[in-house]
Amino acid sequence: MRDSSADNSCSSPRTPNLRQRRRSNEIPPEILKSNGTILLVNDKFKYKSMWIRAYSSLWMLAFVSLIIYMGHLYIWAMIVVIQIFMASELFNLLRRANQDKRLPKFKLLNWHFFFTAMLYVYGRILSQHLVNTVTSEKIFYRLVSNLIKYQMVICYFLYIAGFVWFILSLKKRYYKYQFGQYAWTHMILIVVFTQSAFTVANIFQGIFWFLFPALLIAMNDVAAYFFGFFFGKTPLIKLSPKKTWEGFIGASVATMIAAFTFANFLGRFQWLTCPRKDLSTGWLECDPDPIFKPEYIPMPEFISHWIPEKEIAVLPVQWHALWLGLFASIIAPFGGFFASGFKRAFKIKDFGDSIPGHGGFTDRMDCQMVMAVFVYIYHQSFVVQHDYSIDVLLDQIMRDLGFEEQLALYTKLGQILQERQLMHI
Amino acid sequence: MRDSSADNSCSSPRTPNLRQRRRSNEIPPEILKSNGTILLVNDKFKYKSMWIRAYSSLWMLAFVSLIIYMGHLYIWAMIVVIQIFMASELFNLLRRANQDKRLPKFKLLNWHFFFTAMLYVYGRILSQHLVNTVTSEKIFYRLVSNLIKYQMVICYFLYIAGFVWFILSLKKRYYKYQFGQYAWTHMILIVVFTQSAFTVANIFQGIFWFLFPALLIAMNDVAAYFFGFFFGKTPLIKLSPKKTWEGFIGASVATMIAAFTFANFLGRFQWLTCPRKDLSTGWLECDPDPIFKPEYIPMPEFISHWIPEKEIAVLPVQWHALWLGLFASIIAPFGGFFASGFKRAFKIKDFGDSIPGHGGFTDRMDCQMVMAVFVYIYHQSFVVQHDYSIDVLLDQIMRDLGFEEQLALYTKLGQILQERQLMHI
Repeated sequence: MRDSSADNSCSSPRTPNLRQRRRSNEIPPEILKSNGTILLVNDKFKYKSMWIRAYSSLWMLAFVSLIIYMGHLYIWAMIVVIQIFMASELFNLLRRANQDKRLPKFKLLNWHFFFTAMLYVYGRILSQHLVNTVTSEKIFYRLVSNLIKYQMVICYFLYIAGFVWFILSLKKRYYKYQFGQYAWTHMILIVVFTQSAFTVANIFQGIFWFLFPALLIAMNDVAAYFFGFFFGKTPLIKLSPKKTWEGFIGASVATMIAAFTFANFLGRFQWLTCPRKDLSTGWLECDPDPIFKPEYIPMPEFISHWIPEKEIAVLPVQWHALWLGLFASIIAPFGGFFASGFKRAFKIKDFGDSIPGHGGFTDRMDCQMVMAVFVYIYHQSFVVQHDYSIDVLLDQIMRDLGFEEQLALYTKLGQILQERQLMHI
Repeated sequence: MRDSSADNSCSSPRTPNLRQRRRSNEIPPEILKSNGTILLVNDKFKYKSMWIRAYSSLWMLAFVSLIIYMGHLYIWAMIVVIQIFMASELFNLLRRANQDKRLPKFKLLNWHFFFTAMLYVYGRILSQHLVNTVTSEKIFYRLVSNLIKYQMVICYFLYIAGFVWFILSLKKRYYKYQFGQYAWTHMILIVVFTQSAFTVANIFQGIFWFLFPALLIAMNDVAAYFFGFFFGKTPLIKLSPKKTWEGFIGASVATMIAAFTFANFLGRFQWLTCPRKDLSTGWLECDPDPIFKPEYIPMPEFISHWIPEKEIAVLPVQWHALWLGLFASIIAPFGGFFASGFKRAFKIKDFGDSIPGHGGFTDRMDCQMVMAVFVYIYHQSFVVQHDYSIDVLLDQIMRDLGFEEQLALYTKLGQILQERQLMHI
């Protein structure tokens, strides 16, 4: 079912016919290398494949739009579903049926670790937001804060249970396969949960921080395809023979421009820009963060001759958008190269076949993952205002401490500040 | 150099002669199974091996005692050295020299990831303690807090640099080996850094929380050896044929008793029990945590007939010690089984040969790792008083916020508490 020429990654739609040809060696690899464009011409299945891909892309777009309209919790649920699909695709990748037959319930162990990781990662995120959702009823509050307090122990013992289970399940002559699977499961969980934890964190900081980067990746993808299609000549990287420097550079420029203009549009919707601190799905209203408040910049002379406007409204977030665009077009594609290389190494075509024309979920998420982590760290380091970190600390105080302890902290802080004030004066 | 019968793990000293015999099949495996004790008798190299092991154990003990006397920073440095040795042992484990020859500088990449992980993990711990060490000079304070703020970005880009480096280093026909190594490197880093991050965190919560669990593991190790030696009959687990149920259960009981009594002794030294919040190495004094303050329990009637004392001084930490002892003797050995199984799977005898009679550093650390993580989580969940978490939050406020922001937080907190107070009255 799976063949050995996996070229697709972020920005290269698949051309099945070509792959068949390469397998049967009709086109010698030298020609492919010397002229990358040949890959996309004279291919009778090309248009069919393109239409399938475009069609399922449209459906995905519509579905994702609906989910985003429905709210943060639904987006989170979508992430969880995608995550389960990805994990399932990846778990199956390195399995060998004949070995599994002799190891009953060994597959179940993967999912035990998966749900333990889920409880751990999402438990933490949930707890941060639950505190703002909870009513002031003291008993419920106590219960929740106790659950949060022991969440780490519970997860640890679930993990240890899996660990012991694994050791007891070890079977002679299967050691190597079993240890390989154990390591593989852990790698998958790290990749899948790192990505989704950051993505969910981004969502609650404002849907903008989830939606905008995802769109940038998609845009860069499409742009690279078209630039490569029309201008592609110089091959970019051996891992993905269909990629060209022309596509890469053209897409970068296009993505930067798109990022700058599109941020101005998306940044005007409060539904997208307000952070969500509780777990409800209702409408969001907030005093927009300064980076989403337009600043008026006088139009340069040479342009203002031609159009009536004398100044231009720029949201400060647009400058940040340029950095995101730069990352999305220069670094994120390496996520795709990595996936291509991986597929080549293990001689598979796609990670799965859940999305017609796109392959599996993992195939679509390779660059998105790299991006989500970057956006989170960028946002934390360069966007978050100190005012926000006051709020985070306040949340923490409200969550971790009982009322009497809050009072004690307040008193202590007062003393420290008074001492400091004396020192400074 | 490495043979295929790796039986050693936490609590089983090696008996080289036996291994040679088993290899040459002088003793049929059935006998080994039905009577575990035969493994340790009639072995002319046994005593030599035992002496080598005891001798290097003594040296290690002396060295570790000196380091502990010297202070927290030196213990940390020791952990780092052990860590580097472990990583180096593990990195070399799955390398193939003939493949590496064709991949120049590929080995360097491992260490790039290693030091990136180190910067990330220790940077965070360092930053938490640095804030209490720093003088009140504003410029220095600003500099440090800026470094802390951008630490995550710096580490992220170092990681991304390694990621891109890896992808660009991919060489045809070596894909599978390279991806395997990449995954292996990540597994090693996770194991090594999870363990050491928790260990270092334990050290700063009081050396007790590092030293005591480590001693428990060592005690259980020795006890299992002697109980197995004298009473061992029933084989425990196929992975380690030299282990017996008698050794396992005997060691558990001995460890529990040792834990209870030993905690009473160690818990009386302030040098061991006080948490360290700064980065100096000077003498520690503190008002001992309530769990280290003796409580006097009346001696039961039937004992007080025989000895003059009417009551017994118990430190509350001794009850916690029982749980640690239970874990050290029941769950932690699975760390050893895991290592045994791993060595069998990959047909190696030891992870290294740095410690005469013990194998490599990794061979000595297998159970310690599982324990360190447990101790940290146990301490956080069941030992830390709320009073302490007030301190943690105060530290965070002092570290993350500037003076004006601290004032703002103080004001906001005051308002919230006032509202709450009104609600409660």
